[in-house]
Amino acid sequence: MAGVSPTRTFDAFTGRYAQRTAGMTASEIRALFAVASRPEVVSLAGGMPYTTALPLDAVGKLMSDLLATRGASALQYGSGQGDPALREQICEIMALEGVVGSPDDVVVTVGSQHALDLVTRIFVDPGDVVLAEAPSYVGALGTFAAYQAEVVHVAMDADGLVPEALREAIAAVAASGRRAKFLYTIPNFHNPAGTSLSDARRGEVLEICRQAGLLVLEDNPYGLLGFDGPPTPAIRARGNGADTAEHVLYLGSFSKTFAPGLRVGWVLAPHAVREKLVLAAEASVLCPPALNQMVVVDYLSTQDWQGQIEVFKDLYRDRRDAMLDALATLMPAGTTWTRPTGGFYVWTTLPDGLDAKIMQPRAITARVAYVPGIGFYSDGQGKRDLRLSYCFPEPERIREGVRRLAGVVEAELELLATFGPTLAQRSVGSTTPSPDLA
Amino acid sequence: MAGVSPTRTFDAFTGRYAQRTAGMTASEIRALFAVASRPEVVSLAGGMPYTTALPLDAVGKLMSDLLATRGASALQYGSGQGDPALREQICEIMALEGVVGSPDDVVVTVGSQHALDLVTRIFVDPGDVVLAEAPSYVGALGTFAAYQAEVVHVAMDADGLVPEALREAIAAVAASGRRAKFLYTIPNFHNPAGTSLSDARRGEVLEICRQAGLLVLEDNPYGLLGFDGPPTPAIRARGNGADTAEHVLYLGSFSKTFAPGLRVGWVLAPHAVREKLVLAAEASVLCPPALNQMVVVDYLSTQDWQGQIEVFKDLYRDRRDAMLDALATLMPAGTTWTRPTGGFYVWTTLPDGLDAKIMQPRAITARVAYVPGIGFYSDGQGKRDLRLSYCFPEPERIREGVRRLAGVVEAELELLATFGPTLAQRSVGSTTPSPDLA
Repeated sequence: MAGVSPTRTFDAFTGRYAQRTAGMTASEIRALFAVASRPEVVSLAGGMPYTTALPLDAVGKLMSDLLATRGASALQYGSGQGDPALREQICEIMALEGVVGSPDDVVVTVGSQHALDLVTRIFVDPGDVVLAEAPSYVGALGTFAAYQAEVVHVAMDADGLVPEALREAIAAVAASGRRAKFLYTIPNFHNPAGTSLSDARRGEVLEICRQAGLLVLEDNPYGLLGFDGPPTPAIRARGNGADTAEHVLYLGSFSKTFAPGLRVGWVLAPHAVREKLVLAAEASVLCPPALNQMVVVDYLSTQDWQGQIEVFKDLYRDRRDAMLDALATLMPAGTTWTRPTGGFYVWTTLPDGLDAKIMQPRAITARVAYVPGIGFYSDGQGKRDLRLSYCFPEPERIREGVRRLAGVVEAELELLATFGPTLAQRSVGSTTPSPDLA
Repeated sequence: MAGVSPTRTFDAFTGRYAQRTAGMTASEIRALFAVASRPEVVSLAGGMPYTTALPLDAVGKLMSDLLATRGASALQYGSGQGDPALREQICEIMALEGVVGSPDDVVVTVGSQHALDLVTRIFVDPGDVVLAEAPSYVGALGTFAAYQAEVVHVAMDADGLVPEALREAIAAVAASGRRAKFLYTIPNFHNPAGTSLSDARRGEVLEICRQAGLLVLEDNPYGLLGFDGPPTPAIRARGNGADTAEHVLYLGSFSKTFAPGLRVGWVLAPHAVREKLVLAAEASVLCPPALNQMVVVDYLSTQDWQGQIEVFKDLYRDRRDAMLDALATLMPAGTTWTRPTGGFYVWTTLPDGLDAKIMQPRAITARVAYVPGIGFYSDGQGKRDLRLSYCFPEPERIREGVRRLAGVVEAELELLATFGPTLAQRSVGSTTPSPDLA
């Protein structure tokens, strides 16, 4: 009898899963996160917005008002494409970054991750290539792996994605006979790199992709969280309007500007693609939650949501400063890091000879947590790198966390000086996203 | 340059989609729903619960209390597997139908549709067979199509799925060299058939699947909405405990017992499968919305949720009675229908020679809407069938709707008597779900 053999393996279903399921493996990081979430550990790992700074009572009040006035609709099924009023407001928000789009071409999703899933679902066959920055968002890499895509990384520098590297990657993929479907890019305050694609490069990146017949998947959760002035116009805002609109899928989210616990994101797509996305969304979740969408609609129309973003920016700027100051003061020579001008993350590279993944258990023992860099690559790069987040802990905790981290790095350097390079341990990357890694 | 050729087709992306996207086609039903939702039309089409009957002010109060006391958590990222407190409560609810399961084996999903998507994602390769009742839930068929599964329907009678037909279907699939992955079944108050799998057959269906090495995907959104006494124990509740647990994936939902606008459902899975489902869920949406889960937790712990289910049952029983009475009084001879003892739906078969899909525009002109039966099949069956829902309209509207429908059927019969069978029009089924069809 199937599955009840006395000699069955741990997972009796091994032979029955779909092929794609083989690519879904639990991250080793996951087990450590249980430890990392203990209160005595300073977590510089998670990308959780500081929701404590939200006007919680006002949000509660607007929810009870919503239930009193439109409760039966808020608790009912809604449209698969999303609430029309919300799609209007989303277009107004995107206009802040120069994007001109129609509410009819917006699909509301269960957070931006869902949009990534749907776009990959409709475009990617097993073996197709997706181009992505080096490093790239771990949640996107997990989705690409779940659809058996092959990720080809493209180098970044302090100005973001390097156009020449993009050209070379496209040529190499073409020369190898493989098929690239899109470029996945996070142009603003990159997760995890902390850098932004310079204004000057945006048109060039778009043009390279257009010429190659590649779509640009522009993932922009942090664009309104810049510390130094107005937002840089989006890639989707470049070029000659309608034509650009045919080459870019733009992903947005309320998770960083309002609240991730609502899971409300969106994708703005070329009209023909939008239709496929709605069908895929309906097959996936039927419709996004009506309640959450109406809460966002009411929040945007009754609260000073742009003022709240200023509150967040001031708060995150202070924490960014605390982290950069502490790194400069405390980290051993040979350590380098990026200097974000917005968003949540500092990308740090350890001195030569160290491995951030191997060092991680020792860091957690020293009561500080981070995310090892290899999780942000599909190809084993990033061993010396790690991602530090400054969004959630208070500045004093950030300083304490960096102090502990610096101590761990020093101890590793001493070991290295005494015993030579660590015995080769295989450090493998994460292929699955996790809320802790958002 | 790709995509900007002056002779491009309507969808410039046609050559770039994934193969699976070809299976995602808009239902013809969809366009008609825009018309069907006009107030002058009596819609017997949608499966929308009557959320007006919920204690909306109490739910609003509970939300503002939640925000005041645990707002920062409710608006934050949560666990990919779902809120532990909710998973405990879910096990208590499943116990009402005899299911013994561990909260550790429950995965909270964005409605039950999401659970269907995740289960299909981890088990089904293109070309794999899924067995499903004839007819079956349109949303499940849409998901199976999205993963390029081949659906083989299994006959039902008044006692639900016919065991002998299941044996024959399994044998036929095996004989054809194809691979069946699971049986998808809705044992209680079937959507759309309105029938239930008899108590006596449940163990037999499970045993047939066990012997064939097939999983049972037991979809049970309506189980607590029976009009005639306590719920029938679930398929998952049969057999010798742990062993049964290894052969059944059980899907549940709060959409019909509480509110679909929250999109909170779940799957109880064998332990090894649960792990894969969490990875797939994280790749799909990162985590289900924390807010919605906490609202359900508080609703279940502070409100008389079982009393509310009694309110719903009384209301739906009255509407079921109104529909069955009206059908018996008004429908022309030759029309037959099922007699549900719970849930939302009556499955109706038109007199020989009529086609429910072809008749649909005339019904909408007569200001009554239903769902044609072919959408509930993957193989073109169901031309004479249609689904009538009694969950949403008030009893007087139901009677008026059936009166209009009877008039349309009579007019069709007159046409048939005068001119003979309608010229063969190809009526094709829906392969995509829609909130209207939930």
